[in-house]
Amino acid sequence: MRFVDIIEKKRWKEELTEEEIRWWILRYVAGEIPDYQVSALLMAICLNGMTARETSALTMAMMESGETIDLSRIEGIKVDKHSTGGVGDKTTLALGPMLAACGAKVAKMSGRGLGSTGGTLDKLESIRGFNCYLDKETFIRQVQDIGIAVIGQTESLVPADKKLYALRDVTGTVASIPLIASSIISKKLAAGAEVIELDVKYGDGAFMKTAKEAVELARMMIYLGEACGRKVRAMITDMNEPLGRAIGNALEVKEAVDTLRGQGPADFTELVLSSGANILAEAGLTADKTEGRRKMEAVIADGSALKKLKQMVRAQGGDADQIEHPELLPKADFVTPVFSKERGYIRRARALELGRLAMEIGAGRETKEDVIHPETGIVLGKKTGDFVKPGDILAWVHHRGPLEGEWLERLYTAFEMSAEPVPEKQLIYKTL
Amino acid sequence: MRFVDIIEKKRWKEELTEEEIRWWILRYVAGEIPDYQVSALLMAICLNGMTARETSALTMAMMESGETIDLSRIEGIKVDKHSTGGVGDKTTLALGPMLAACGAKVAKMSGRGLGSTGGTLDKLESIRGFNCYLDKETFIRQVQDIGIAVIGQTESLVPADKKLYALRDVTGTVASIPLIASSIISKKLAAGAEVIELDVKYGDGAFMKTAKEAVELARMMIYLGEACGRKVRAMITDMNEPLGRAIGNALEVKEAVDTLRGQGPADFTELVLSSGANILAEAGLTADKTEGRRKMEAVIADGSALKKLKQMVRAQGGDADQIEHPELLPKADFVTPVFSKERGYIRRARALELGRLAMEIGAGRETKEDVIHPETGIVLGKKTGDFVKPGDILAWVHHRGPLEGEWLERLYTAFEMSAEPVPEKQLIYKTL
Repeated sequence: MRFVDIIEKKRWKEELTEEEIRWWILRYVAGEIPDYQVSALLMAICLNGMTARETSALTMAMMESGETIDLSRIEGIKVDKHSTGGVGDKTTLALGPMLAACGAKVAKMSGRGLGSTGGTLDKLESIRGFNCYLDKETFIRQVQDIGIAVIGQTESLVPADKKLYALRDVTGTVASIPLIASSIISKKLAAGAEVIELDVKYGDGAFMKTAKEAVELARMMIYLGEACGRKVRAMITDMNEPLGRAIGNALEVKEAVDTLRGQGPADFTELVLSSGANILAEAGLTADKTEGRRKMEAVIADGSALKKLKQMVRAQGGDADQIEHPELLPKADFVTPVFSKERGYIRRARALELGRLAMEIGAGRETKEDVIHPETGIVLGKKTGDFVKPGDILAWVHHRGPLEGEWLERLYTAFEMSAEPVPEKQLIYKTL
Repeated sequence: MRFVDIIEKKRWKEELTEEEIRWWILRYVAGEIPDYQVSALLMAICLNGMTARETSALTMAMMESGETIDLSRIEGIKVDKHSTGGVGDKTTLALGPMLAACGAKVAKMSGRGLGSTGGTLDKLESIRGFNCYLDKETFIRQVQDIGIAVIGQTESLVPADKKLYALRDVTGTVASIPLIASSIISKKLAAGAEVIELDVKYGDGAFMKTAKEAVELARMMIYLGEACGRKVRAMITDMNEPLGRAIGNALEVKEAVDTLRGQGPADFTELVLSSGANILAEAGLTADKTEGRRKMEAVIADGSALKKLKQMVRAQGGDADQIEHPELLPKADFVTPVFSKERGYIRRARALELGRLAMEIGAGRETKEDVIHPETGIVLGKKTGDFVKPGDILAWVHHRGPLEGEWLERLYTAFEMSAEPVPEKQLIYKTL
């Protein structure tokens, strides 16, 4: 087999065999195929696509490129969730403890943020002492004991994805449904859960720009996961506006805690309840979604979900007092309100721009080497549909040093105004 | 400027600017852009194409990536020809001396053979002592003095093409009209001739498989050359069958000499006369093609073309006696005839397979490191349209050691037979 023949096949739109795909991934991870050949194949895949059969073979080959986690020692139904990423997405922080409080076993591996998109690990690390790097044994034991652990992906999990993703990032080959789907699902499969809930976001602050693309990606991922005997469900959600109100690491931890106390923003609370209901029903922990939703509401009302979060934080070396008293979380030196100068309705608070603005003041990373300042960020005072008049607060900026005029101007214009009333946006576009 | 943005642009079918293309080529030649990014761009170009404007910018950038040859010191009209390559193509060996004998100045840089395709330099080197590596001064002086020199492309000419071609070869990105056209024309422009005649071949033994593709490639090359003020003409010719009868280096030199004596194969003679007529007319050395053709015939008839070849061989250190007496050229130890076992008409002698078979017995290179045995090859006894009966000789094999049964079987089946008479094939499909 010559790799150039595999490239040529894809170039001329022929279907690759499972054997060819497996050979590619195996040799590439072993360092036997150079990047310059793989990037040509990746571009051919971006432009000519992959069949479901090819994508499935790629997913399996990637999963098998490294270690897989065996969760079978853990009693109960192991559940996992994955979001394709967005601005203000602190879902894991609230949903994880709620699911664990409902009796599901949440063995979750998360990632870090880059660009306008935040990462769960960065958010958790704004809690003093929190340790994202447990060894596999400790990880599994913690899930067994308290029902939940959230850690960073181990180095040995799906090494093919690490190599491929780094290459895709610099060769214009990130945007591709088969490549994105196989990257996500190979990691979910390797991480071992039986029930997987996907949150596929679309819009200006998400990777998929349209709902149509998001549905296509979700369908492909459901197919890939189910082909391996996992239960996979997906929600297609709007990411034209940030999720909830807080953008920035400690600020998002606080918002997740508020939500676990029943005081979270409406859109974020709705997303968490709906996702949780899907998972509980799918896992067979409740008879259906309606009962699932009631159970999710109950673990908020009785405080058991918040207790579960504190338990997890404590188990991973973190300061649980910061959960009980979020005012103890890292605090910005300055909190500056931004006032409306107009009267009207918010048409949209632009997610991508708000994510970038938060990143620029320290809440995110422009490059992998950048340091995050957990206390910084933006909290939205107004969201789509809200009426504002001059003097109303559009947002609070949590910052370290002086803010530049141009930055403030961009923040202001990130809120699109309308003279006419604007209907509230529908967060959940579809459940699959 | 970030290279990944250029890749993304092409990926999404946007037109690249001249500045972007120039930046790419400049940085790539300087070693500042890695191969893995360039191969992704090349694949995107293969699949999304390039506009004429982009292709022109690429051609110029490539030409300017290295040295260009200034032929202005040479008096007279400087002409050049290029063939896209095929089996049995010894055109330069006959056409070059004929043009020089007609008063054109032929400053020609040629290449080597790879795979089933032969190369002019390898053919010339079957002449004892022939030197393909003259320095630029000597090259120009020889063209000034005797009207012709044929040398290998200098290292410093279009270095971008060398790097790009090596990468394309291993990344499935060779087949692309803009990439092929810019590769060829950048070298022709750098080599300095005013009149350029292209022989774009199509068919089983050529790079372009159909006449349609060949016409498209030819039109693009004419556009590119004329955009730089050169006169460019093209012939589209059939390469489903080898050109002439001889395949193999010394055998082809002999066939070129036969042709210069007026005893060449009909198809090859026709191609040389037509090409030459086009060039002479285009160069203004004759009033029109009809007069050009008469002049070409005259330099065969009066022996001046053959004399010119001997002059060139002598000037480049070669043994001109081998031209005067081709029986002195390297001779194979064995010459084995292959007989027909059938009665019928030759439908086709398959070019690609015959080229491969000749390569396998030493007439060509499978890899760049292989050594050529100039005496080896195949001479066709029959070609398309010929009637054969059992016992007639289909081909003579010039070889070094014993021939394998399977090889002989493949040679036999390279001749496709028909019970019905087959019309003679038309070599020249179109003149542009």
